Amino acid sequence: MVEQYSKLEIDRELALLNQLTSVHWILKSGKLAKTFTFSNFIEAFGFMTKVALYAEKLGHHPEWFNVYKTVNVNLITHEVGGLSKKDFELAKIMEILSH
Amino acid sequence: MVEQYSKLEIDRELALLNQLTSVHWILKSGKLAKTFTFSNFIEAFGFMTKVALYAEKLGHHPEWFNVYKTVNVNLITHEVGGLSKKDFELAKIMEILSH
Repeated sequence: MVEQYSKLEIDRELALLNQLTSVHWILKSGKLAKTFTFSNFIEAFGFMTKVALYAEKLGHHPEWFNVYKTVNVNLITHEVGGLSKKDFELAKIMEILSH
Repeated sequence: MVEQYSKLEIDRELALLNQLTSVHWILKSGKLAKTFTFSNFIEAFGFMTKVALYAEKLGHHPEWFNVYKTVNVNLITHEVGGLSKKDFELAKIMEILSH
């Protein structure tokens, strides 16, 4: 059972997450969002493939848009109608895998 | 060198493409578009992985959005500012791989 994060928890988790990167995650329409840019399609889709395996394992999947070397990610926990621990776990994994 | 398809060529190619499937490709904002629905994330991302390898080989990449078992695809040939042979080739590959 996963619980929805409060505004305070989101702010704290977002600050922690953004310590990992200079290109920050932001809140967009209630979702945790970031655009990743790679050097080409192989790198972008390679990243997506690694993330996909973790996502399936976690049972938590991203909303993502890819065109060539760009991957736009939006994370939300639909079952709680907001953000939860799961989104920040997946975001952290993405951050680590993107470097 | 790839050439932009005329309206007539697009109509002909679209009709041929849609003979392969009951869920039709449509033209959306000048792009060749379709939403594929699979049984789960593994099937959806498995499809994307197969398509990615062909796309890289063709040197022609899709614009695509995935959330869980759904994959929204938009194809366009940016270098000609419209649709070309490449889009219909990639669409046909996607159609075959999605079954």
